[in-house]
Amino acid sequence: MPIPNLQVALDHSDVSSAVETAVIVGNEIDIIEVGTVLLLEIGSEVIKTLRHIFPDKIIIADTKCADAGGTVAKNVANRGATWMTCMCNATLATMQSATKEIEEVQVELYGNWTYEEAQTWLNAGIRQVIYHQSRDALLAGETWGEKDLTKVNKLIEMGFKVSVTGGLNVDTLPLFKGMDIYTFIVGRGITETDNPIEAVRALKNKINEVWRD
Amino acid sequence: MPIPNLQVALDHSDVSSAVETAVIVGNEIDIIEVGTVLLLEIGSEVIKTLRHIFPDKIIIADTKCADAGGTVAKNVANRGATWMTCMCNATLATMQSATKEIEEVQVELYGNWTYEEAQTWLNAGIRQVIYHQSRDALLAGETWGEKDLTKVNKLIEMGFKVSVTGGLNVDTLPLFKGMDIYTFIVGRGITETDNPIEAVRALKNKINEVWRD
Repeated sequence: MPIPNLQVALDHSDVSSAVETAVIVGNEIDIIEVGTVLLLEIGSEVIKTLRHIFPDKIIIADTKCADAGGTVAKNVANRGATWMTCMCNATLATMQSATKEIEEVQVELYGNWTYEEAQTWLNAGIRQVIYHQSRDALLAGETWGEKDLTKVNKLIEMGFKVSVTGGLNVDTLPLFKGMDIYTFIVGRGITETDNPIEAVRALKNKINEVWRD
Repeated sequence: MPIPNLQVALDHSDVSSAVETAVIVGNEIDIIEVGTVLLLEIGSEVIKTLRHIFPDKIIIADTKCADAGGTVAKNVANRGATWMTCMCNATLATMQSATKEIEEVQVELYGNWTYEEAQTWLNAGIRQVIYHQSRDALLAGETWGEKDLTKVNKLIEMGFKVSVTGGLNVDTLPLFKGMDIYTFIVGRGITETDNPIEAVRALKNKINEVWRD
């Protein structure tokens, strides 16, 4: 089983903090995500800045696109984004419009979605989904449970590369032991620590330890 | 029955075109929406620019927020947004975090949602929903039908102020005759015409004609 990737979500609200964190962790992290909060606040120019700093890195625009897929995809691809996210309740037409303009689309699983819908995404050539614990739900006391892990496993069995996110840290990562997780996405667990590079190394060490066993 | 509002969706990809359109139509339109495409592309600073030009106008940030509701709401409210949008598949916790930071939240109805969920929004003090025909779905040939109008009526009966959007023009507006629509939202039907102010006047005249009958 491949070792899962580690992705940092840059969910700052200003460009200099985002770039500062990216520069600190960029060489040791597998994937850089330009978070939705950051995009809404400062726009997609920041993708271009990050692309200049990391010419060969996978950079994801977390657009959470729900409509106008082609326009949004073209805009972020022009700035250098490798992949972008679409909401699971966007129409298939929206997702397909996006896939024409960017290398890959990742479907964000929020709220109600069905495996039948997921199959239509697969049929349309979409290979990636992101399974979420909402930041606000986590704040309200929810956490990862058997129900979540079962859904993640089912999506992997269907053939998706599955990224997971929400409240992940060195203590919760081992919950996914034995599962073919594509990427662990961590935001504030890296960006809001006193020492982001140490946080990245601790997460990478834990992933290597659990998935090499 | 009150005359429905007319809202322009500024879904440009650059600030000068958006501001140009806003200046042309701003005094005759009821509500200005800063579209998702525009926010993702240039960031929320444009809200501040529009607030300077229209100090007393309702300005909506179409953030389509799915997570981190409090942060997104605070960011756009700081720039002068009156209201913002949340996705229907955001958690109630996300919507509630947003409502603490901004005057009102509008829930965007995309994909699968239930009246039971809608009731939880009402119970949480959320008074507005937006019923959608997806731009990409319209391009794929779908349009307004009895099924849509029934859902819109049911939401109005539940007590929501309902805005509707997607492929609206002087020919489709009369489909809603007799319904207590809060706002008609029109994007490219205004912004991509040769004469945006004439488009606004034609839409306003049609609304007045149909709802004054």
